[in-house]
Amino acid sequence: MPSQIDWVAVDWGTSNLRAWALDSGGSVVESRSSPEGMGRLTREQYPGVLASLLSDLADPADVLICGMAGARQGWLEAPYLDAPADLTTLERAAVSPEMPGSRLAPRILPGVCQRDIGAEDVMRGEETQLLGLSALLPGFEGLVVMPGTHSKWARLSGTRLERFSTAMTGELFELLRTQSVLRHSFTGDLEGEDREVGFERGIELGIDRPERLTATLFKVRAGALLSDRSSAWCAGFMSGLLIGAEIGGQRDWVPGAGEVPLVGNVSLCALYQQAFARLGMQTRIVDATDATLAGLKAARQG
Amino acid sequence: MPSQIDWVAVDWGTSNLRAWALDSGGSVVESRSSPEGMGRLTREQYPGVLASLLSDLADPADVLICGMAGARQGWLEAPYLDAPADLTTLERAAVSPEMPGSRLAPRILPGVCQRDIGAEDVMRGEETQLLGLSALLPGFEGLVVMPGTHSKWARLSGTRLERFSTAMTGELFELLRTQSVLRHSFTGDLEGEDREVGFERGIELGIDRPERLTATLFKVRAGALLSDRSSAWCAGFMSGLLIGAEIGGQRDWVPGAGEVPLVGNVSLCALYQQAFARLGMQTRIVDATDATLAGLKAARQG
Repeated sequence: MPSQIDWVAVDWGTSNLRAWALDSGGSVVESRSSPEGMGRLTREQYPGVLASLLSDLADPADVLICGMAGARQGWLEAPYLDAPADLTTLERAAVSPEMPGSRLAPRILPGVCQRDIGAEDVMRGEETQLLGLSALLPGFEGLVVMPGTHSKWARLSGTRLERFSTAMTGELFELLRTQSVLRHSFTGDLEGEDREVGFERGIELGIDRPERLTATLFKVRAGALLSDRSSAWCAGFMSGLLIGAEIGGQRDWVPGAGEVPLVGNVSLCALYQQAFARLGMQTRIVDATDATLAGLKAARQG
Repeated sequence: MPSQIDWVAVDWGTSNLRAWALDSGGSVVESRSSPEGMGRLTREQYPGVLASLLSDLADPADVLICGMAGARQGWLEAPYLDAPADLTTLERAAVSPEMPGSRLAPRILPGVCQRDIGAEDVMRGEETQLLGLSALLPGFEGLVVMPGTHSKWARLSGTRLERFSTAMTGELFELLRTQSVLRHSFTGDLEGEDREVGFERGIELGIDRPERLTATLFKVRAGALLSDRSSAWCAGFMSGLLIGAEIGGQRDWVPGAGEVPLVGNVSLCALYQQAFARLGMQTRIVDATDATLAGLKAARQG
């Protein structure tokens, strides 16, 4: 006999929708995902997409959602909490979109914003991962780095988010790789063995000279033209430059000692781990999905 | 009676083709342009495009070309000169593509490259503008800044190009404005009056914190979401951030005194002028077309 489903945890991001059905002990009974992220939905489509994703699940009424579904351009805006923020209050600030004719009672958690002039910033989804991290690493205080399309650097103190900053590293990499003049340097195999050599060179230059990024990026093209650098070398070099500049430019956030948690895609986090190692920093990789699920559970018990 | 045409000067860039017919005194008799830049031509199309552009001109046989037509993916590769380079030798290094059945005898000037490891760079077209600048400002020694899609910073000593560096400022602005998540902040009128306010703020932050660029760029989005910044403010701010970071990150190139020539589109140069003024630097704007034409004339007399 299958376990009774108690509630459903949902991560509704820009490009993906993932759901986990949990029993009353917090164990995952079922999980599913769909590409119907915020980016391809109109407001009116959300109820139908959620109902369809969960249609074969027996009982669950309680659905707790984090991520972009709560954005202004999402399903229903869940106004930001202001940083510094106590993340145990996320659930209290959730909004409840209507699902006419459905048993489902969805609630969407808010994101967190930072309004200080000159440090304005926003997050949606990462606040839930940070709450999850505080549950996975009880009592942790310090810098958390969340590599991704929009990397977040956050100062966490237990369940309190002190401040944070976003770097557009992942998005810049994709734009430059596919849309810029540098794309001509990426026409071959990007995964060859000298990707690592290029990455090491890029990390070094990025960390040492983050202020030169708009100039060092052009070295990708010049290196391909003048030194016959392979596409793999160029991809590694550009990735290293961008990750290195993100870290080098925010060195004043990096603590002198202790372990920095890296929350994100595991293989991307491994690149950041390599970069932080150049600064003599220990890191610990936490899979983003684990952090999200832990965060949704912690929010519901908040 | 129209003046006799002695030769034709041509600037064949990525997105444009421009030609000036000159008499033996160096005066422009005719000029024309076409959107048939390198970016939309196959190698085989060049002779026909040039013949058609110049078909109604009476006599000219001598056609001197600068720019991307000499790139590997252009008409005929004109191998780079190595920096440091004496720009009076450009013509000697020109290549002559074939024009079967035509009176026209085109020659394409080379670009300049810099092979030093870690400072690899390339230019095609700007070397001719720099030679032109040395003719327009005889004896000039110092930094020349050439704002554009790929901004060039060059150290010029008379007709000698000592070294140079490229920043991808203009291309990054266009990519971020049209393709990134920041595009959502540019849906309104970009030319409103608070563009100037945003620009000033961006310049300040860009010059002071160039190492933070990948993070400060995200403030464009956060400012629009949290502070209802207008599209014009956002456009000014992003432009200021990128120009400021280009200048702030290369401060060690900026001389302590003297006037810095800015060679490029005049309204873009005016933005750089404003930014350099924050560092207390005097600048002098030189229209890119004037520099190109002066450079092609000087090359031919080289």
